[in-house]
Amino acid sequence: MKVLFHVNESERWPRVLLNTTNFIKDVGSGKAEIEIVANGEGVSGYVEQANPDLMTKMGELAEDGVKFAACRNALNMHDISEQSLPSFVKVVPAGITEIVNKQAAGFAYIKP
Amino acid sequence: MKVLFHVNESERWPRVLLNTTNFIKDVGSGKAEIEIVANGEGVSGYVEQANPDLMTKMGELAEDGVKFAACRNALNMHDISEQSLPSFVKVVPAGITEIVNKQAAGFAYIKP
Amino acid sequence: MKVLFHVNESERWPRVLLNTTNFIKDVGSGKAEIEIVANGEGVSGYVEQANPDLMTKMGELAEDGVKFAACRNALNMHDISEQSLPSFVKVVPAGITEIVNKQAAGFAYIKP
Repeated sequence: MKVLFHVNESERWPRVLLNTTNFIKDVGSGKAEIEIVANGEGVSGYVEQANPDLMTKMGELAEDGVKFAACRNALNMHDISEQSLPSFVKVVPAGITEIVNKQAAGFAYIKP
Repeated sequence: MKVLFHVNESERWPRVLLNTTNFIKDVGSGKAEIEIVANGEGVSGYVEQANPDLMTKMGELAEDGVKFAACRNALNMHDISEQSLPSFVKVVPAGITEIVNKQAAGFAYIKP
Repeated sequence: MKVLFHVNESERWPRVLLNTTNFIKDVGSGKAEIEIVANGEGVSGYVEQANPDLMTKMGELAEDGVKFAACRNALNMHDISEQSLPSFVKVVPAGITEIVNKQAAGFAYIKP
């Protein structure tokens, strides 16, 4: 099973992380490839000081194999430096390209 | 044709049901497999007392072959008992798993 | 690469056009098939007087090969005449059918 979650509003992060957690509980740890792609204002969720609880939860999911990506265009637009991101976040040149490529590779798309 | 609609906010139900109705009008009754999956706060739309008009419309669509699913995690979180649901609603262990499986089975994904 | 953007709220248009622009910058002009389908209240974005800046941007993207579609049901519901639409907008009988068909034809689905 392969699934990509798309986040472009930071207020959606709690919902996305809950969806991801419940999905893993249902199918079993390690049974699915999961990637969460943030673009637009959604990349604000990766600012640790603003969201310590979210960041803790993201870190736990990352340890469980969930991949996190951030759109470079969005980081630039929101004045977030790549160096400030947690180490588990992969920066991609354009979030939309990442989403298109993943769907072409068989990932289901979910917009929570 | 196969299509899955995803509802995670109850305010979106009127739009989803209108989309579904117009789609069926366009392609013809019985010409498409249609499933509507509610998770998160979207499952509140299945509470009959709160939404009698929506429920009537859902029932008509169900008679026309549209499938309705509810995420058990979301039902629990919103204190909605499975026994209170209309008979045409199928409860699934996790809404996200249902969405992933349907896309893998060739269903288009639409988030109204 | 093939991608379909779905717009059903007119406030989302600036985001959709920015996503499209950044995507084209990333992959290169002419390297992807891109279609933007508006239904529901999203078709209001095609009313030129209301959105002159958006319309200019849409026109530029259309010249670069991006396709724009409007749902006829939605146009009727919002009292927008087909004759009033810019020439680059294609009217389809039902937006949902267009979205389903494009996904069946291998287009990635993105809901900004």
